[in-house]
Amino acid sequence: MNTPASRRTFFQRSALVTGGFLLPDEKAQPTPPNETIKTIRSLRSTHGNFLDKPLPEAALETILQSSLRAANASNNQSYSIVVIKSRQMMKSVCGYQGGCVLLYCADYTRIKACAETMGYSYDPKTIVDFVTASTNTALAAQTAVIAARSLGIDSLLTNGIHRGDMDRLWKLLDLPQTHCFPIIALVLGYPTEEPNHLKGRLDGPGIIHSEKYHALTKEEVGEIILKYDDKDSRLALNDDWRAKYKHYLDWFFGDWMGLRSKPADQETQMLRLLKRSRFVEPPQV
Amino acid sequence: MNTPASRRTFFQRSALVTGGFLLPDEKAQPTPPNETIKTIRSLRSTHGNFLDKPLPEAALETILQSSLRAANASNNQSYSIVVIKSRQMMKSVCGYQGGCVLLYCADYTRIKACAETMGYSYDPKTIVDFVTASTNTALAAQTAVIAARSLGIDSLLTNGIHRGDMDRLWKLLDLPQTHCFPIIALVLGYPTEEPNHLKGRLDGPGIIHSEKYHALTKEEVGEIILKYDDKDSRLALNDDWRAKYKHYLDWFFGDWMGLRSKPADQETQMLRLLKRSRFVEPPQV
Repeated sequence: MNTPASRRTFFQRSALVTGGFLLPDEKAQPTPPNETIKTIRSLRSTHGNFLDKPLPEAALETILQSSLRAANASNNQSYSIVVIKSRQMMKSVCGYQGGCVLLYCADYTRIKACAETMGYSYDPKTIVDFVTASTNTALAAQTAVIAARSLGIDSLLTNGIHRGDMDRLWKLLDLPQTHCFPIIALVLGYPTEEPNHLKGRLDGPGIIHSEKYHALTKEEVGEIILKYDDKDSRLALNDDWRAKYKHYLDWFFGDWMGLRSKPADQETQMLRLLKRSRFVEPPQV
Repeated sequence: MNTPASRRTFFQRSALVTGGFLLPDEKAQPTPPNETIKTIRSLRSTHGNFLDKPLPEAALETILQSSLRAANASNNQSYSIVVIKSRQMMKSVCGYQGGCVLLYCADYTRIKACAETMGYSYDPKTIVDFVTASTNTALAAQTAVIAARSLGIDSLLTNGIHRGDMDRLWKLLDLPQTHCFPIIALVLGYPTEEPNHLKGRLDGPGIIHSEKYHALTKEEVGEIILKYDDKDSRLALNDDWRAKYKHYLDWFFGDWMGLRSKPADQETQMLRLLKRSRFVEPPQV
């Protein structure tokens, strides 16, 4: 299956919607990119190697202002952003340290307080409320990422906050016990070194669907597995797997994801805390 | 409380982190904005009034490519994007029509198919998996919004997909029954008319927290309620409330949110479908 000819067919098919993203030499970009598109194309995550250097206040202000410009359901801004500049606190909260950390939380506390002050009974406690608020929250976070990158500030979006004892977040940051839930931490700062390449992305079958969902064929699944092995695709998190495995996804599923030895208590913890946060409704009786 | 003096104090306090976002004349922007920041500052939602005009293919390609550049956990791209160009389908899916609709779904189907083909047992069925994937999905969606705006294409992010009979999405679009869940629909297109102003955002206490979460005082809650009433804040969804109510939030909570007459079955529907999607784990026994 892994012949140049069949791979080429697959790449062409996989690039049917996008402009040959993974094979830029095969298809020219449709129009010259503007500055915003260039910024977006240059996005990369910095994993841990941030300088111990705070952000300029003016940059942080611009990033926060930008973040708030993201759309949000009914303009009720069902989120909170905790700005953390203490390096010890950054580490305790998300496991990383940078110029600063923005902790993005789905949060109805403020809205509920307004409602109750005005005599309305408002209890946004269902999974619908959670999905709405967590989506609003992530939209705001990504807007901050792009704004930061345009200012020469790199980032790491990490769900490190969901690892370990999650309740530490409530204790460390005085988060409200109900109607507030941490979604993602955004570490901002300056990397100690430039990455030597941008990660690639899958962009064909299984990612982009035209008009209706296309269920992958066995052949397409096989081709995706091979695509991860292709150095030019840049899809892999590292290159170390080559010494040990036939396929990158063997390393990914076996070593990285730890399948077959996955602990179960982490999952239960999040559901328990979402229940305490009142976002998951009790079973119907 | 609503005297110019106390309001000014509040606005100054509320602008402690940001650059006086809601009162641009009170505090100069710290640095001249670059093109990306300008794009982000110009973001606005188009509510329904899109022209019946398709997007240029090149623009759609650029938007999709950009969307994929968002960071995602372990580069496993746990999402799918269904590109809908049929106007009838757009309407049925999310209640709106534009140049096209991108339906963003949290989706492990592709990754699970790869794992199973390779002999790994992978069942991303917990709320942790759901929150991780739905966050990745929203990050990608917001990147598309910003890319589109830079190309002169407006948008509406809508959770209209979560209203009515949600199961229609699975039926209309052949979505997989498990491990796939629609998070947000992005309508892209050209508005019939320019909005006469951008919506404002709260940016002070209750939104931005410094180092730790700041629980709102009663006074701050009162000031936020008044802030929504201030025409200059542009926080309100409309101005019609002034004829009927003392406060905007009376219209918002009473008429818009329909508090006191909220139907309960919608919430139960999402939890039921999330369970069917295997994202919410069964109760511990």
